[in-house]
Amino acid sequence: MNKHSRSFAAASMLLISATYSVANAQSTLSDARESVLKSDEVAYDVIEGLTTEIGPRQGGTEAEARARIWAVNKLKALGFENVRIEEFKMPTWVRGEEKAEISSPFRQKLAITALGNSGSTGEAGLEAEIAYFPTLDDLRVVPDGSLKGKIAFVSHAMHRTQDGSSYAAFGPARFVGPNIAAKKGAAAIIIRSAGTDYHRNPHTGNTNFEAGVTPIPSGAISIPDAENLERMLGRGKAITMKLKLTPQNIGMQTSGNVLAEIPGSNPKLPIIVIACHLDSWDLGTGAIDDAAGCGIITAAAKHLKTLGQPKRTVRLLWAGAEEVGVWGGKDYGAQHATEGHGLAMESDFGAGNVWAVDFLLPESASELKRKIVAALAPLGVVPRKNVAAGGADIGAIIAAQKPGIIDLQQDGTKYFDLHHTPDDTLDKIDKAELRQNVAAWVSTLALVANYEGPLNPEPMP
Amino acid sequence: MNKHSRSFAAASMLLISATYSVANAQSTLSDARESVLKSDEVAYDVIEGLTTEIGPRQGGTEAEARARIWAVNKLKALGFENVRIEEFKMPTWVRGEEKAEISSPFRQKLAITALGNSGSTGEAGLEAEIAYFPTLDDLRVVPDGSLKGKIAFVSHAMHRTQDGSSYAAFGPARFVGPNIAAKKGAAAIIIRSAGTDYHRNPHTGNTNFEAGVTPIPSGAISIPDAENLERMLGRGKAITMKLKLTPQNIGMQTSGNVLAEIPGSNPKLPIIVIACHLDSWDLGTGAIDDAAGCGIITAAAKHLKTLGQPKRTVRLLWAGAEEVGVWGGKDYGAQHATEGHGLAMESDFGAGNVWAVDFLLPESASELKRKIVAALAPLGVVPRKNVAAGGADIGAIIAAQKPGIIDLQQDGTKYFDLHHTPDDTLDKIDKAELRQNVAAWVSTLALVANYEGPLNPEPMP
Repeated sequence: MNKHSRSFAAASMLLISATYSVANAQSTLSDARESVLKSDEVAYDVIEGLTTEIGPRQGGTEAEARARIWAVNKLKALGFENVRIEEFKMPTWVRGEEKAEISSPFRQKLAITALGNSGSTGEAGLEAEIAYFPTLDDLRVVPDGSLKGKIAFVSHAMHRTQDGSSYAAFGPARFVGPNIAAKKGAAAIIIRSAGTDYHRNPHTGNTNFEAGVTPIPSGAISIPDAENLERMLGRGKAITMKLKLTPQNIGMQTSGNVLAEIPGSNPKLPIIVIACHLDSWDLGTGAIDDAAGCGIITAAAKHLKTLGQPKRTVRLLWAGAEEVGVWGGKDYGAQHATEGHGLAMESDFGAGNVWAVDFLLPESASELKRKIVAALAPLGVVPRKNVAAGGADIGAIIAAQKPGIIDLQQDGTKYFDLHHTPDDTLDKIDKAELRQNVAAWVSTLALVANYEGPLNPEPMP
Repeated sequence: MNKHSRSFAAASMLLISATYSVANAQSTLSDARESVLKSDEVAYDVIEGLTTEIGPRQGGTEAEARARIWAVNKLKALGFENVRIEEFKMPTWVRGEEKAEISSPFRQKLAITALGNSGSTGEAGLEAEIAYFPTLDDLRVVPDGSLKGKIAFVSHAMHRTQDGSSYAAFGPARFVGPNIAAKKGAAAIIIRSAGTDYHRNPHTGNTNFEAGVTPIPSGAISIPDAENLERMLGRGKAITMKLKLTPQNIGMQTSGNVLAEIPGSNPKLPIIVIACHLDSWDLGTGAIDDAAGCGIITAAAKHLKTLGQPKRTVRLLWAGAEEVGVWGGKDYGAQHATEGHGLAMESDFGAGNVWAVDFLLPESASELKRKIVAALAPLGVVPRKNVAAGGADIGAIIAAQKPGIIDLQQDGTKYFDLHHTPDDTLDKIDKAELRQNVAAWVSTLALVANYEGPLNPEPMP
C-alpha cells in the first residue's frame, strides 16, 4: 500500500468507527430531543436566574463579577466538572448622563443613549446644528473638516432579516460612523439606532475610534426619534440640538471567563468548546443577549450527559466582556491556543428558533453531517450552502486552532427589536422556541461529541 | 287637539323636516365617506404636525402654549371660523429626576417614572424595604400605620380589553393607590404601570391625594420591571430599594382651550360641540393621546363643510390640560354653561378603528339613530345597548347642559400599550384606521348637524 492508500484506509477505519458509535447514540437521541422539546426547564432557569438575581452585567463592572459567582454556583449545581473562572483585565468605559433636546426650532427632548467608547461632552454639554446624512455613505464623501462645529446625524434603512444580515449592512453607521465623523471634524455624532423596533429605547453598542482619533460624543437615538428628526429636517430649516453625554473611561478592570466541562472518555480526542457570553450591555437585563445563549448551551450539555459520557470533552465557555470588545473570547483564545480543539460552536443570537445549520468540517465527516442534518430535520432546521463561521467569542480560538465549526443559525427576525436596549428582558423569551434551540443543540452535540474522526477541516496545527 | 297631541304633532313635523334634510344629505354622504376612507390627509397632517413641530405638551407648560399657537394657525388654515384661545389658570406639577434601584439583595436599576402629583423624595432620595401587594385590595386591608418606613409596591393583572374596561378595573392602583398608601404611613409607593405592553417605558398619569394627606413619592415601574421585582420577592428575601423622585409643584400656570367653529345656518338650534385635548403627557409626543382625537374631529369637521353649511353650529374644542386634571374641560363647562348645547361628542381613545356606537338621545330621535347606525354599518360599526357617557373634556358641559351624546367607540385593544408612555409617537398611527375614524365621524356629524329635532334627552335646562 502506498502512502495515500494507507491514509485512506486509516481514515476509513476512523469513519466506520465513528459511524458505528453515532448509530448507537441515535436510538436514545430522538427520545432526548422529544423530552427536551416537551419539558426542558434548564435553559429558562439560567435566563430567569441571571436576569432576576443579577440583571445588567456590563463587562468589567462589579455586576459582571457577581454574575461570575452566580455562574460558577449554577454550573456546579448542574453537575459540571472543572468549573472555574479565568480572570483577565480589560479597559472599561462606563455610561454617564445622557440628554438630547432639539433646541430650535421644534423644541423637544429626544431619547438617546451613548455608544460604547463615546467621548464626553463634559458637564456643560454642547449645542450645535445638525448635519444630516441619510446614509453612512453620504457621510463618507463629505470633505475633511467640513463638519466642524456640527453634530452629524446618520440615518439608515435597517429592516428585519431572518439571518441578521441587515446588521452587517447597516450596523457600520454605529461601528465606524463616529470615527469617520470625528475625522471630518464633527463636534459629535448621533445615529439612528441600529434596530428594527419602534420604541423609545435607543440601541447602544460599541463603536471604535482609530488610534490618534479623539473620541467624540457619540449617541444613538431611538427609531421614533430618528424619524421625528428626519421630519423636522424635511421642513427645510436649520435644526439645532443640545447634547449632554458624560461617559468615562475608568481604566483597566477585572473581567473573566467562566468555564465548565463534561470530561470525555477519550482524552486524546480534541475537545469541543461551546460558547455564550455572560456579560450584557448595561441597559437591559441581557435575557436574549446573551443569557439565552448560556441557557441553551448549558441545557444542551446537561441533557447530553444523560445520554452517557461522551467520547470528547465538551467545554462550556461563558465568556466575559464580549459586548465591550470580545475581551473574554480573546483571552480564551490566548490562554488555550495550544490545547487541541476539534470543534467550536456558539449561541449568541437570541432565543429564536434554529432554522438553519451551516458546517465547516472536513470532507471525511460527510456522513456525520448527514446524520446531524437528519437529526435536525424534525425540528424544521434546514442545511444551507453557507460555510460556518462561528461567533465572536470563539473567533480567537478558531484563529488559533482551526477547529471544525457548526453554526446552528437562529431566527433573528425580531432580534434587533431588542438588541442592546433596555427592552432585552426575560418576558421576551418564548419558552417553546428556547426548547427548540436546546433540542437542536443536544441533537448536534450528541453526534459530534461521540464522533472520533477528525473534525478540523484542515490537519491540526 | 289636546296638549299631548299638539306636542306630538309638533314633534312629528320636526321629525319629518329633519328626516327630509337628512335624506337629501345622504346621497353625497356615502360619497364623502368613501372619499375620506381613500384619501383623507387632514387627520394625519394634524398628528404629524403636532408631534413633529411641538412634541410633548404638558398642560401648563410653555410647550402647551406653543401648541395652542400651532393649533390656532392650523384651524384657521383649514378654514374654520371664530378660531380663538380661551385661557385659564391651573396648578402645575412638573417632573424631576427619576431613579429606582434594587439595592439588596439583587442589585439592579428599574425603569420608573413619577405619577402626576407625586411627592418628592428630596435630592437625597430614600432607601426602604418593599412591602408587596399583589392587588390594590391587598393594600386597602392592611392596618393604618403598618407601612411606616416602607415602600409599598402594588401590582395588578391588567390585560387587553377592546373597550378599555381593564383601565377602569386596574387603573385605581394609580388613581387612588398612592393616597391609600400615604394614609397607611408608607414612605413611598411604586405601582406596576397601568398598561398592557412589555417595554421598559413606564406609564405615567395623574394620581390624587385627599385634602390633608401629604403626597408621598409615587412612581410607576415598567411591566417587565414589575414582573422582575415580583420574581425577586418570590425568592422570599427582604428586598430593599433606593428611590429618587424630585418632582415639583410650580404653582398656578396658564393653560387654555382652543375653539373653532363651523357656523350653522340656523343659529337658534343648540350647537354641537366636538372635543379632543391638545395637551399630552410629557413623556411621549402625544400622537395617540390625543393628537389623534384632534386630527379625527378636525378632519371630520373639514369634510362636513364640503357637504354644505350645516344647520347647527359645530364647535371644535381642543381642550387644554386634560391629562393633569381636566382643567380645560372644566373651564369650558364653566364658561359656556348657559349656551345651548344640543350634542356633545369626544375623541380621546387613540386612533384604532371605531367599532361601536352608543347613544344618549331622546326617544323622538329614533329615526336619526337608525340613520346613523345605517351610515356607520359599512364601516363595521355596531350599535350597542350601552348608554353614551361622553368623555372627560365634555364632562362639565354635559353636567351643565345635559346635551345628547353620541360615543363613537374606538378599539382600544392596543391603546394601553402606549398610553402615557414615551412610546406614544407618530409611528403608532395606522393611517387606514385613522381614516375609518374620520369617516365614522363625518357620517355621524352630517346627520346630526342637519337634524333639527331635539337632541337633548331631557328638556333643556
